[in-house]
Amino acid sequence: MQSREKPKLEKIHVSVFAADHGVAVEGVSAFPQVVTTEMVKNFAAGGAAVNVLARHVDAYFEVIDVGLIQPLALADVISHRAGAGTTNFNSAAAMSDTQLTVALAAGQAAVGRALANGVDLFIGGEMGIANTTSASAVAAASLRIPASDITGAGTGLNADQIDRKASIIESALQRHQSVLCSPLDILKTLGGFEIAALTAAYINAAQNSLPVLIDGFISSVAALLAMSINPGCTDWFFYGHCSAEKGHARVLQALNARPLLSLEMRLGEGSGALLAVPLLQMACHLHNEMATFSQAQVSTV
Amino acid sequence: MQSREKPKLEKIHVSVFAADHGVAVEGVSAFPQVVTTEMVKNFAAGGAAVNVLARHVDAYFEVIDVGLIQPLALADVISHRAGAGTTNFNSAAAMSDTQLTVALAAGQAAVGRALANGVDLFIGGEMGIANTTSASAVAAASLRIPASDITGAGTGLNADQIDRKASIIESALQRHQSVLCSPLDILKTLGGFEIAALTAAYINAAQNSLPVLIDGFISSVAALLAMSINPGCTDWFFYGHCSAEKGHARVLQALNARPLLSLEMRLGEGSGALLAVPLLQMACHLHNEMATFSQAQVSTV
Repeated sequence: MQSREKPKLEKIHVSVFAADHGVAVEGVSAFPQVVTTEMVKNFAAGGAAVNVLARHVDAYFEVIDVGLIQPLALADVISHRAGAGTTNFNSAAAMSDTQLTVALAAGQAAVGRALANGVDLFIGGEMGIANTTSASAVAAASLRIPASDITGAGTGLNADQIDRKASIIESALQRHQSVLCSPLDILKTLGGFEIAALTAAYINAAQNSLPVLIDGFISSVAALLAMSINPGCTDWFFYGHCSAEKGHARVLQALNARPLLSLEMRLGEGSGALLAVPLLQMACHLHNEMATFSQAQVSTV
Repeated sequence: MQSREKPKLEKIHVSVFAADHGVAVEGVSAFPQVVTTEMVKNFAAGGAAVNVLARHVDAYFEVIDVGLIQPLALADVISHRAGAGTTNFNSAAAMSDTQLTVALAAGQAAVGRALANGVDLFIGGEMGIANTTSASAVAAASLRIPASDITGAGTGLNADQIDRKASIIESALQRHQSVLCSPLDILKTLGGFEIAALTAAYINAAQNSLPVLIDGFISSVAALLAMSINPGCTDWFFYGHCSAEKGHARVLQALNARPLLSLEMRLGEGSGALLAVPLLQMACHLHNEMATFSQAQVSTV
């Protein structure tokens, strides 16, 4: 990957993409929609899990507004807005062609900044109330499986609420059936701006030989879209963890992924990927610094 | 565990215990017995996997000769010898009462040094050609299961060689059946000096409120003995990983352990525990540094 004898993992770039989801009006999340914006402020202030983890692996961190309901006037938030939240995909397509293009460009631009800084690894994170609903819909459409096979608790729904969430997704899958042809159709119809940004970021990273560490369920669904658009890009993907979100294992299986951790985490933001960074760093150190049996004069059979 | 509001994991002590095994004459290892000593030299020179990993988590590292065939005159190796290797347990008890006492004291002394340095975590590692044979015998006797249920490939046996290794263990279990009463009987009859040292180290650490991170199969068998001797000590145990060695999952199950990693590693030395250290450190950082929802003004339901 790095075209060098001794691999290194020193400079890490973390881009967290945040956006709102029209489907939140269906009551599919355990948290109110305003939490998307509140968490973006928390990211900007350095108080979220992803901030703590990024600091401790000395990663560069940025948060990008790709479509909050209302823009935030904060210096520490990059504005690359595709709209004021998506449309509720249970009534119409989540986004227009133009909005999709802008959201994809936001992901490409983030990787462009990472490449300009000469980083060794790209990590994408996400924040968006109701985005497990969008990601589950995208995964069900991409894998051609029923919504109930993949819909989970998100930030903390109970069994009845999960059933309702799956019904809403299933109804949207029926409604849009005739237009869910290509991965980009699926993304435009059922996706979110942050999912589109992640998809484009992963493809752009792979096309520029920049390794990617995939995070949780939402990120993995974006990786699945990236693979559907350009199968070769998965050669550049590592997988941080398998989360507790119901559909994650199924999506990882479709990606033929072997996640590094499985700790029943379910936070997103990029947290599961960042937690796995030291494992990749240790792998580089072992490769670079261990004595060979010959150097250490250890007998073999 | 640490009796403080904000847990910390900064100072880490790694003790690797090395000893030879009489049962090696049965041809149960893929490597010649001299490798035990050669690897101790490698530890002292800083070239082994455990050295690389210890350096990168800034851990204090020491290697203790608890019973190599021949003593090593190396300044960087602590000498606390219980004998010149154990006796082949397929013909007699592996060690005498006196030897057991010395080996246990070696483990206690290592934890004494760790406590004197005020460390936050103790990691024990081991090196000893044929010690998966000894550990498998100890585990089979402790769990009262057939040797074939737990005997694995060690450093790389093929299927026929594993069968032979299991037969030798089963024959020893039959031979010594009448004396395998207490955990210390099992340890003395089938164990190794490094396994005894680890057992005593784990108990001593727990009795002094020093958290322990258990490594692989051999270390977990020592943890099983420690639990059998003093059930309360497992409250102080974390488990670094589940290795690829066949019996490890079974032993972890008996310990009611939830290992942090499962990466098909099988090296021992303490390597699997050290690789998990950043996860525990990150857990402390998240606990100590994240903003609460209230501090970050994030809405809840």
